Amino acid sequence: MFDTVLIANRGEIALRVARTCRELGLRVAAVYSTEDRDSPVVRFADQAVCIGPGPARHSYLYLPAIMEAARQTGAEAVHPGYGFLSEQADFAEACEAEGLIFVGPPPAVIDRLGDKSTARAAMADAGLPLLPGTIEPVSDAEAVAKVAADIGYPVIVKAVAGGGGRGMQVVTEPDDLPRQYREIRSTAQSLFGDDRVYVERYLPAARHIEVQVLCDSHGNGLHLGQRDCSVQRRRQKIIEEAPAPGLPRGLVEQMGHAAVRGLLAAGYVGAGTVEFLVDDQHRFYFMEVNCRIQVEHPVTELTHGVDLVREQLRIAAGEPLDVSQEELTARGWAIECRINAEDPDRDFMPTPGRLTELTLPGGPFVRVDTAAEAGGRISAAYDPLLAKICVWAPDRPQAIARMRRALAELSVEGPGVRTNRDFLLTALKHELFVAGTHDTSLVGRLTDPQTREES
Amino acid sequence: MFDTVLIANRGEIALRVARTCRELGLRVAAVYSTEDRDSPVVRFADQAVCIGPGPARHSYLYLPAIMEAARQTGAEAVHPGYGFLSEQADFAEACEAEGLIFVGPPPAVIDRLGDKSTARAAMADAGLPLLPGTIEPVSDAEAVAKVAADIGYPVIVKAVAGGGGRGMQVVTEPDDLPRQYREIRSTAQSLFGDDRVYVERYLPAARHIEVQVLCDSHGNGLHLGQRDCSVQRRRQKIIEEAPAPGLPRGLVEQMGHAAVRGLLAAGYVGAGTVEFLVDDQHRFYFMEVNCRIQVEHPVTELTHGVDLVREQLRIAAGEPLDVSQEELTARGWAIECRINAEDPDRDFMPTPGRLTELTLPGGPFVRVDTAAEAGGRISAAYDPLLAKICVWAPDRPQAIARMRRALAELSVEGPGVRTNRDFLLTALKHELFVAGTHDTSLVGRLTDPQTREES
Repeated sequence: MFDTVLIANRGEIALRVARTCRELGLRVAAVYSTEDRDSPVVRFADQAVCIGPGPARHSYLYLPAIMEAARQTGAEAVHPGYGFLSEQADFAEACEAEGLIFVGPPPAVIDRLGDKSTARAAMADAGLPLLPGTIEPVSDAEAVAKVAADIGYPVIVKAVAGGGGRGMQVVTEPDDLPRQYREIRSTAQSLFGDDRVYVERYLPAARHIEVQVLCDSHGNGLHLGQRDCSVQRRRQKIIEEAPAPGLPRGLVEQMGHAAVRGLLAAGYVGAGTVEFLVDDQHRFYFMEVNCRIQVEHPVTELTHGVDLVREQLRIAAGEPLDVSQEELTARGWAIECRINAEDPDRDFMPTPGRLTELTLPGGPFVRVDTAAEAGGRISAAYDPLLAKICVWAPDRPQAIARMRRALAELSVEGPGVRTNRDFLLTALKHELFVAGTHDTSLVGRLTDPQTREES
Repeated sequence: MFDTVLIANRGEIALRVARTCRELGLRVAAVYSTEDRDSPVVRFADQAVCIGPGPARHSYLYLPAIMEAARQTGAEAVHPGYGFLSEQADFAEACEAEGLIFVGPPPAVIDRLGDKSTARAAMADAGLPLLPGTIEPVSDAEAVAKVAADIGYPVIVKAVAGGGGRGMQVVTEPDDLPRQYREIRSTAQSLFGDDRVYVERYLPAARHIEVQVLCDSHGNGLHLGQRDCSVQRRRQKIIEEAPAPGLPRGLVEQMGHAAVRGLLAAGYVGAGTVEFLVDDQHRFYFMEVNCRIQVEHPVTELTHGVDLVREQLRIAAGEPLDVSQEELTARGWAIECRINAEDPDRDFMPTPGRLTELTLPGGPFVRVDTAAEAGGRISAAYDPLLAKICVWAPDRPQAIARMRRALAELSVEGPGVRTNRDFLLTALKHELFVAGTHDTSLVGRLTDPQTREES
């Protein structure tokens, strides 16, 4: 294996990747913006390079600075984490051009699967079911209106280059379509520099189920079961769990095999996630591929006893998968809660600031991934994710009880800083969540002033 | 089940028990000495009662104060943790007399198994192998000399009432026997109020292997595999792991069944541990029974996916075991390191004091059990255990690598406070430990100035 890994990211995922590198005996090279100079990963790393000022476009998204850091530290491999450059084919290409191993799929694969239009085409070719809609981008309002009329309202108009919950718009009324179509194109242009959009049927209350896949560079692939990520605010996940509650065994296997088949057909190498929507009839529809480690990967690690970052690094080093689908076994139930520095009462607006006090939960079957610490800052320049609290238990009711215990132990103090801790506790208590019959409408039920349910 | 549990203990184990109570929906009643008034468990508990000044004999060992706390809090059950009153039959009896459920075996069983002499007799009756020595206490120096001559030197003279590494003396030379015999009787009298001793062969380099057992009140029992606790300083464990490395599968099963058979024959109810010595020929010898949860129980929890405190509480409530020996499966490898506030260079002398800074490890497959926190104190009045760092991994080499990573993340600062962190790191790197062929002589190799090995 290579000796030195550059971690082209920040926060909890940088530290999490660094931990596995250290366990594998690899040298850790970290990068940091001036905003992050006091981050734990800077102290943890064997070497850390400042790559520029706070705003990500001047540092974590600024490719020349990252490449220079790789040269300076003598890195042989680059782990991109999630977000930032992790799904930029340009970045993977630049690494290859420099003789660096990019820990992720080949650039051409990122390119194809990162574009939602070509991704849908590739998965349709591999036989995966899609929601009714367009595969090719639609380039004028009239064409969109025709498609929408064909598939029926509500529809969702999505940026081809979108992801992470950004660049999409639900259209309920035909009359609103022309305006909303223009808006989403303009948003897509400004967010992604690409205004192409496509249309598909919108399922207001579907479940968001994703399959974790590993593919090595020798043509082998396997899946590590499902995660249910239906609890979302502003289309971003806040509670994730593995396995997905209440799915029939046959469906689980069908989705798992479909995900592996789809990624192998696309020439995928590395850890990847295939996201599906599952409707109330237990029909599943391909949504998108995430060509990177996911924020919520720990729940799969806890059920399967596998270190996914270790597998990413092994695969990147050319090693074959050392386990077969049949040998892989899952145990029990895992839940992750994302603790964000944000105000649920003000539409989840971020509440950055200095942390004067931070008490994290511990004890039996609790895992905490965080780069936050007392005295540190939650910066307005980045995502407000403060910590990931994960628990494992033999079954789902025990996992919920454990998560409630763990969240109750969490204490975050700082001027102006609020967290979604209590909101998460409310969601965990909701009868639909407890029954495992919730869907992506759960957070709406808890926040919509019209239907707001008191805890 | 009962509603309120009084936790008659302090420190990490009090918090650990409280966490499971909370997860089960039970009300937590804590007790604390004036020394511990700022302990996290006091804040965690639903109710907390001060039971007296710092020295344990005036608080955690002072039965009337504990019983009064149980009355005040309306507790229906009492969890004794480990140490303090946990293995005092008097305490279990007092609880019964008050109509309280004692979370542990019946008083008569504690009495019989707590006395090493009657414990040896009980286990011999159940067919467990003992080391050559006496079952009855020996009451004069001449008789001891005769036994020692019969079984051969070195021998170990042990207090019948001893435990936790205290009240024992190895005798290498016949000439030293009379003096050492007098000394150990006098020590035993002052430590335990009972000067009876017995003699057995001393194995200088045996392995300390223990079996975790659960017995319900319906006559069912099962074991949860082995723990290897051979890394000891001053006869107290500092590194424990599960399973035990390098034991033949047949031996593992034999020891497991022997342990269950022994405890069921003794009428045991609850979680208990049967400790064995295993010699280099893989012969095993019964050593003692611990009638309580062990410090090192988390390694079994991590391999078996079982919350042992939950099982204790369920059993105490009269519920039957809900799993059979055949259904129980272990996965991977777990290691625990006990972080003590002590100075390995000064014979592990405790180094109490205030903690100005405390950084605990986190991330994948790391569990931390502690009641220590920045700003808190490690009190000279109690055991210097500061935290238990536990890791899990699919195999032993990965678990060792993970533990080294986790220990490296630990940072403890405070005037006068030292820890055994670096000593543990040295032990984890030792070739015998890495090979899994170490025995109880490992710490001696690392500390004996004559043979000291540099790391």
